[in-house]
Amino acid sequence: MTWLKDERYEPPPRRNHWRMKLHEVIFEADTPAGKAFDVLLILSILASVVAVMLDSMGAVRLEYGRLLYLIEWFFTLLFSVEYILRLVCVGRPSKYATSFYGVVDLLAIIPTYLSLVLPGSQYLLVIRLLRILRIFRILKLVPYLGEARLLMQALRASGRKIAVFLFTVLTLVVIFGSLMYVIESSESGFTSIPRSIYWAIVTLTTVGYGDISPQTVLGQTLASLVMILGYSIIAVPTGIVTVEMSHAFGRKISTQACPECSAEGHDDDARYCKFCGSAL
Amino acid sequence: MTWLKDERYEPPPRRNHWRMKLHEVIFEADTPAGKAFDVLLILSILASVVAVMLDSMGAVRLEYGRLLYLIEWFFTLLFSVEYILRLVCVGRPSKYATSFYGVVDLLAIIPTYLSLVLPGSQYLLVIRLLRILRIFRILKLVPYLGEARLLMQALRASGRKIAVFLFTVLTLVVIFGSLMYVIESSESGFTSIPRSIYWAIVTLTTVGYGDISPQTVLGQTLASLVMILGYSIIAVPTGIVTVEMSHAFGRKISTQACPECSAEGHDDDARYCKFCGSAL
Amino acid sequence: MTWLKDERYEPPPRRNHWRMKLHEVIFEADTPAGKAFDVLLILSILASVVAVMLDSMGAVRLEYGRLLYLIEWFFTLLFSVEYILRLVCVGRPSKYATSFYGVVDLLAIIPTYLSLVLPGSQYLLVIRLLRILRIFRILKLVPYLGEARLLMQALRASGRKIAVFLFTVLTLVVIFGSLMYVIESSESGFTSIPRSIYWAIVTLTTVGYGDISPQTVLGQTLASLVMILGYSIIAVPTGIVTVEMSHAFGRKISTQACPECSAEGHDDDARYCKFCGSAL
Amino acid sequence: MTWLKDERYEPPPRRNHWRMKLHEVIFEADTPAGKAFDVLLILSILASVVAVMLDSMGAVRLEYGRLLYLIEWFFTLLFSVEYILRLVCVGRPSKYATSFYGVVDLLAIIPTYLSLVLPGSQYLLVIRLLRILRIFRILKLVPYLGEARLLMQALRASGRKIAVFLFTVLTLVVIFGSLMYVIESSESGFTSIPRSIYWAIVTLTTVGYGDISPQTVLGQTLASLVMILGYSIIAVPTGIVTVEMSHAFGRKISTQACPECSAEGHDDDARYCKFCGSAL
Repeated sequence: MTWLKDERYEPPPRRNHWRMKLHEVIFEADTPAGKAFDVLLILSILASVVAVMLDSMGAVRLEYGRLLYLIEWFFTLLFSVEYILRLVCVGRPSKYATSFYGVVDLLAIIPTYLSLVLPGSQYLLVIRLLRILRIFRILKLVPYLGEARLLMQALRASGRKIAVFLFTVLTLVVIFGSLMYVIESSESGFTSIPRSIYWAIVTLTTVGYGDISPQTVLGQTLASLVMILGYSIIAVPTGIVTVEMSHAFGRKISTQACPECSAEGHDDDARYCKFCGSAL
Repeated sequence: MTWLKDERYEPPPRRNHWRMKLHEVIFEADTPAGKAFDVLLILSILASVVAVMLDSMGAVRLEYGRLLYLIEWFFTLLFSVEYILRLVCVGRPSKYATSFYGVVDLLAIIPTYLSLVLPGSQYLLVIRLLRILRIFRILKLVPYLGEARLLMQALRASGRKIAVFLFTVLTLVVIFGSLMYVIESSESGFTSIPRSIYWAIVTLTTVGYGDISPQTVLGQTLASLVMILGYSIIAVPTGIVTVEMSHAFGRKISTQACPECSAEGHDDDARYCKFCGSAL
Repeated sequence: MTWLKDERYEPPPRRNHWRMKLHEVIFEADTPAGKAFDVLLILSILASVVAVMLDSMGAVRLEYGRLLYLIEWFFTLLFSVEYILRLVCVGRPSKYATSFYGVVDLLAIIPTYLSLVLPGSQYLLVIRLLRILRIFRILKLVPYLGEARLLMQALRASGRKIAVFLFTVLTLVVIFGSLMYVIESSESGFTSIPRSIYWAIVTLTTVGYGDISPQTVLGQTLASLVMILGYSIIAVPTGIVTVEMSHAFGRKISTQACPECSAEGHDDDARYCKFCGSAL
Repeated sequence: MTWLKDERYEPPPRRNHWRMKLHEVIFEADTPAGKAFDVLLILSILASVVAVMLDSMGAVRLEYGRLLYLIEWFFTLLFSVEYILRLVCVGRPSKYATSFYGVVDLLAIIPTYLSLVLPGSQYLLVIRLLRILRIFRILKLVPYLGEARLLMQALRASGRKIAVFLFTVLTLVVIFGSLMYVIESSESGFTSIPRSIYWAIVTLTTVGYGDISPQTVLGQTLASLVMILGYSIIAVPTGIVTVEMSHAFGRKISTQACPECSAEGHDDDARYCKFCGSAL
């Protein structure tokens, strides 16, 4: 959840006054100029994403294709300049470049250049949307960030259990998919094992497109089993996450480490370390 | 949840006796006349909604179109008169007019008039159904109102977490939708990014119409990912709401200890210690 | 949950020895004869249900239709005789006849007679399956009955909340269905408001047949809203039931009433009334 | 959950040195040779499963069918030799042969031999995937095994409740399916009771293929009921599993009170009072 982290990259060393100024405008949102920059940035992002979407619609492209093409390049060049400025004005460019926002900022401009070689890849520009996550920082939506952190904490706490669950689900769909491939003929759409596994996923997750569906009595019986299984085992991730959330939301654990033994995980109301007894 | 609020608008000032009388009949349900009025009102609403539904069915309209048209206008005029009377007999008309019920009452008559200009809009009359929420007040279904309040309380408490969740879901569907647009051809139904986003929503929410479904191996692989994701992350809102509900419904256990035997864990309403019988 | 109740109907008054004997065999499962009768009964029920199912399959009926017809009448007459014997040997026939099992026993023979007048109604014979619920009593599956009672208790405790939830869902589908009827044309399948409401239910519950699906951009946008809503609000019944179950499974509440003040709802470990302090 | 158990079969009696050596390599993963063997084994399994999948794809089989056939036999013979070696080097062969892994190891080679008689059965070779469960042991994924055990414990604890739930669901789908068969005509796909039951399962579990869907008003009304039922009762298994998980995962809080300050609520692993710092 690196996007939850504050974007506090070191400002450049003292002497370069203009770089510090730039840093203040681009990376911070405390000054009027910094706030205006961020708002403008978000509007640009939204505008460019809408342009990409419109460009993907045949009728619109026919009429306004040229205009949208120009808009796309305009925003790409704008964001490219912004990216370079960010690299220039930050204290340690390599740290920004490898951070979550740095990678997203780069990914948000590459597709347009790539589309010169690989037509169609410009639609990947919607990744720009991720840049909007900055909105949380700008609007000072601290309570929301707090909630997001709590949610992530609960999900991380249940990570291993979820992994075991997903591993089980994957094993199940491979085996059920293969069984269906043996049972059903190609006419029903079960033309290969991978495709049958795809059907098993569609069915177990209760999505049920219906583009592939069993026709034989045996196949429908097995499919019924898969459905009831999928309907029941959804209780497993739900149960896991609910329990972890109830722990995460309920009990405040302080981030304090014991000054003596460095143990962590103390309750919020603890005044002494529960492992060595020294005052916290 | 303004519809949970009691409809206690100020009666008009003393002197206008007939207005107070009218207020009693229309807004209150304590007198026989008031109750009769409310029951009649609900029956009228139900009848008019049924008429609207019947009117929408081709075969029925062909035969009884004229009759249904008259019924529609009859109820609309009736409700219009009722709306005006409500405005007249209430103490502060502006407060009623801007209240939840006031807005619904107005919305419930507008569509018929609107249909003179915009044919088809009369089907929006089903909004009249919302007027029936008054039934809770009339039937004095207080326990149900209490439960509804509890539910709303739990949902409001989890509002921010749900907002973070929905924001994540929206970001996911936009990105997955665009990816599918790049991967799949138009023949499979992925004709534009907005339409692909629609597919992503249909899939992530496990609805799965099947009107658009991926045909390529890469597309089906990505779709499988979206399905398993949708199947798993439904645990998140479920977990959030469950935990908040468990807080909202939570049986109150007082923190009081018995002054005699020091036993704890007494119910909030306990007046005597359940272990030694001494007064708490 | 009347089927959870033990089937202890009063045996007939003393003098009619053969009726008491019959009562023991038919209604009880403690003697070898009683157990044998019950096992035979269940096998007959299963056989007759299988016969009904086979009869519904075109190819099978063509070949064995005459045989299945005879089997159907054989079992119906058998169960008719059994029903009459039950009425004869029980102490208060009217009580049995109006009990859950009495009604099911009657419903299990009526369809065959009805099919003489209304062809096709014999397929309703599957209601005989409900007779099999007796199996819990015969196999002395007491722990399962206990679990079933706990589940029912939790569901009954959450009854009002579920009612509020269902009322909300019904209001939502009527309004969304009508909106879609106005937005979408008949060609997409939205031919009337009731049919559009059907679509809204199919979508909100995330079933998603795809026999009716929106084609316009506005319709798909509204549909997306309905899907996300349905995907999210499933958390509500889940939360309700989970919380109530956690109460029902967790905390033992004794059925004891205070001998002094008649108050109920005491904890299992309570020794004194929590309201008046007198010993329980 | 026998696959969670450690695979510690007795090594053969002392004197046969080469058998002990073999046992160490094949059954254990502590020595470099043992680890190398296990890694190789897992790679072989994955390779053979991929080969089976590729073989099922028409286009690939056309081109590489002969090669894949050889690969299949190569791995089958390899695994056959391995299976025999396992039987030879283990202390009590019968115990291994009847254990979970022993049965899976056998099932993983049978299909190829069977395919000589029954063409098509070689696709069942994907059962080999289950052999990969050994990966948990090799990679010493003890924490994951622990989580899996916790999950299984919660599921086993809720076993009876889930059984009652599944029994109810099965009764419901049989009765609803039969009702739909009586209501709907064959043209909508409800050609027999078993097929209608299949529809009821597809609908109740909210999968919703749409290959069979009701066309009459009465049928759609009943279908709506089934959908709302399915949408609501999914809360039941979810609630059951959540509550049991909350018991199984429950953070251990000791009942110990501090000997100095009498404070309670200490963690199970606490050695010092968190409020006054004195030893517990």
